[in-house]
Amino acid sequence: MKVSIGAQPFIQPLPVLVIGSYDQNGTPNIMTAGWGGICCRVPPCAAIYTAKSTRTYENIMASQAFTVNIPSISFVEETDYVGIYSGKNENKFESLGLTPVRSQTVNAPYIAEFPFILECKVIHSYEISLRTQQFIGEIVDLKAEEEILGEDRLPDIRKVQPFVYDDIGKNYYKTGELLAKAFSIGRKK
Amino acid sequence: MKVSIGAQPFIQPLPVLVIGSYDQNGTPNIMTAGWGGICCRVPPCAAIYTAKSTRTYENIMASQAFTVNIPSISFVEETDYVGIYSGKNENKFESLGLTPVRSQTVNAPYIAEFPFILECKVIHSYEISLRTQQFIGEIVDLKAEEEILGEDRLPDIRKVQPFVYDDIGKNYYKTGELLAKAFSIGRKK
Repeated sequence: MKVSIGAQPFIQPLPVLVIGSYDQNGTPNIMTAGWGGICCRVPPCAAIYTAKSTRTYENIMASQAFTVNIPSISFVEETDYVGIYSGKNENKFESLGLTPVRSQTVNAPYIAEFPFILECKVIHSYEISLRTQQFIGEIVDLKAEEEILGEDRLPDIRKVQPFVYDDIGKNYYKTGELLAKAFSIGRKK
Repeated sequence: MKVSIGAQPFIQPLPVLVIGSYDQNGTPNIMTAGWGGICCRVPPCAAIYTAKSTRTYENIMASQAFTVNIPSISFVEETDYVGIYSGKNENKFESLGLTPVRSQTVNAPYIAEFPFILECKVIHSYEISLRTQQFIGEIVDLKAEEEILGEDRLPDIRKVQPFVYDDIGKNYYKTGELLAKAFSIGRKK
């Protein structure tokens, strides 16, 4: 029997993404997002959402570009810090000793220390509500540390060690053990 | 040192969502999605993406409503099946012995057996590409099985037991162990 919880913005679990952008002076900023993901295969696109009150919103509206930086579990402290403090008050790269690298393909910085990066050029921008803007970025390039690649030369999730976020309990969880092979376990018997 | 992988639509990990919709005859359909998530807090909204070739796309364009059904690990076979086969050829509820329940708040069916449901009314619809449509649904109600609720009467991720999808390796993974408390571990020391 289902009980009604009311109108709440919850899905479990959420990804953990760190969004990189430049302001108009070229100062790099980062924000942590649990909202966002892949939204199109052709062309490859990522969707992100920002409150209009953020530095990231101002930056992307002007630069029309962003990076998506996927943290490993070893960066959980830095990732949480980025989600707590505002780029309006500090340069979070400097505060955390992280290294901003200017993307060669889009007008946005990525985090040198993070293993898995998407470089995105905004192709659509939609106002979801008075407070929230959506940016759809075409993924121009994906960059990864050599040591997280599998034999297929693509990121191996067991080496990336990404984590997820539970917005109800306000906790981060590791990616757990293998459950099943997709497009396989559900085949008609 | 980062290596360039090229323009690829990958983020790790992705959520696993099963989208419910009705066709114009009231036949329920479900599709599995790794793309989608929460996109706005006020009003609470979920974003989903569908290929225009799907039955789900036709259904939501007409009904302007959908449900998001979050599976527990015990439903991994059913979830994978829903991602493999098309609602154009069969009623997947009947094939799997799942029970469609007509939402009392939106014109869409949810899966009785799944523990955690979002009921959504489309408030925006955007063409992301020639092949892909985005639907932004206002979350009108969230419904959950009594036994997955925590003391706060909200879904407890350890009881929901949701899983995630890796679109590179094409595998499902469990949600793993607790890594850290959010808005806490990153506080300035």
